[in-house]
Amino acid sequence: MRLLLISNSTNAGEEYLKYPIGNIRDFLAGVSEVLFVPYAAVTFSYDAYLEKVQNRFDEIGIRVRSVHQYGNPAEEARKAHAIVVGGGNTFALVKKMQEEGLIEAIRERIDAGVPYVGWSAGSNVACPTLCTTNDMPIVQPQSFRTMGAVKFQINPHYLDHNPEGHAGETREQRIMEYIAANPRMYVAGLREGCMLRIEGNGISLIGSRPLRIFRCGEEPREVNAGESLDFLM
Amino acid sequence: MRLLLISNSTNAGEEYLKYPIGNIRDFLAGVSEVLFVPYAAVTFSYDAYLEKVQNRFDEIGIRVRSVHQYGNPAEEARKAHAIVVGGGNTFALVKKMQEEGLIEAIRERIDAGVPYVGWSAGSNVACPTLCTTNDMPIVQPQSFRTMGAVKFQINPHYLDHNPEGHAGETREQRIMEYIAANPRMYVAGLREGCMLRIEGNGISLIGSRPLRIFRCGEEPREVNAGESLDFLM
Repeated sequence: MRLLLISNSTNAGEEYLKYPIGNIRDFLAGVSEVLFVPYAAVTFSYDAYLEKVQNRFDEIGIRVRSVHQYGNPAEEARKAHAIVVGGGNTFALVKKMQEEGLIEAIRERIDAGVPYVGWSAGSNVACPTLCTTNDMPIVQPQSFRTMGAVKFQINPHYLDHNPEGHAGETREQRIMEYIAANPRMYVAGLREGCMLRIEGNGISLIGSRPLRIFRCGEEPREVNAGESLDFLM
Repeated sequence: MRLLLISNSTNAGEEYLKYPIGNIRDFLAGVSEVLFVPYAAVTFSYDAYLEKVQNRFDEIGIRVRSVHQYGNPAEEARKAHAIVVGGGNTFALVKKMQEEGLIEAIRERIDAGVPYVGWSAGSNVACPTLCTTNDMPIVQPQSFRTMGAVKFQINPHYLDHNPEGHAGETREQRIMEYIAANPRMYVAGLREGCMLRIEGNGISLIGSRPLRIFRCGEEPREVNAGESLDFLM
């Protein structure tokens, strides 16, 4: 199993997919073509999404094909040599992946060793369920179950504080609710600018900010790049 | 139909349910007892939630009974003379309301003219669906469909800006995704400290901050207290 699960496509004030492209290049060394899943796009077209990603992947010499260009996306996924799932709205992404049979098809390819890159919603769907997404439920998927390529949940764009004066739940409070309702699960709060690289049973954090780990009955704790994350696997 | 749909229980730095209690008193004039739905509580007990609410309602001389104290919550709801649904996690609330048959039972009472007060998740469930909640999906309800006492969606705790330096979607971007996927729906962004009071076909905004209105194909716009909201009905 080979996964690169990225918190966010773009850091504030930077260009689209700029900060992680070097890590994507390293991870996809030897790959010349990827199959892209654009279904998290809602307010812009799949064509526009493909073009935006292709423009960045041009820098690392990788051609991007998108599942929306094919009549049978699951069949394309079963032939793909590398798979990339982009961010946007997780509920829209999961609904369409379920309708197209992509949850199973991509999971099979991951199990066969094909490299998988996801960012934001694309990282959420590698987890057992879509729970712990930050996205708004805008459509109802068949189920909350997603690929389960990893056994833990990721909260991408992990955020420490609310804006000043705002009384809504903090991210930590939301995740504390999740672990109260799902007491056997780990949640990894993956801050912006960070990613998890998984190679077989090995997992490592890439990024300058620590990962925040949540589990029911344990105090939330910070794990820095270089420290062991084996307990997640 | 009589509804008081409140954005948030508590403003930052204030006591629990302090700011809206005067409005709740006015709205529930003549009512001596309400039936409370505490199912949005996740990290604290239903008993603790009831106590917290009772403590505030003591100030306005109203006794609070809670559905969790009864073997058949839907039966209690069908006899209630006023219903109050508190905030917390919307997914947990909807799952339990669906399991207990409370979506239908409470909707029937609302149609019969029984006053309904909700805050945060309790305002979300008065809408056609749970979409436009801000809450994290921590459990999967049977369906996203909720009571539909109003025809539009509310986004409680409506928030204008992300914290500085955070690249995740803003609330406005999330709602723009919802209306793109649901082009016939209005969304009312209800800022903290504000509420909607609905009496029959009449609807008015209470609060010092404007309501932000979203609909597909229209520019988001602000409506102040005193201005007409008839288009929502």
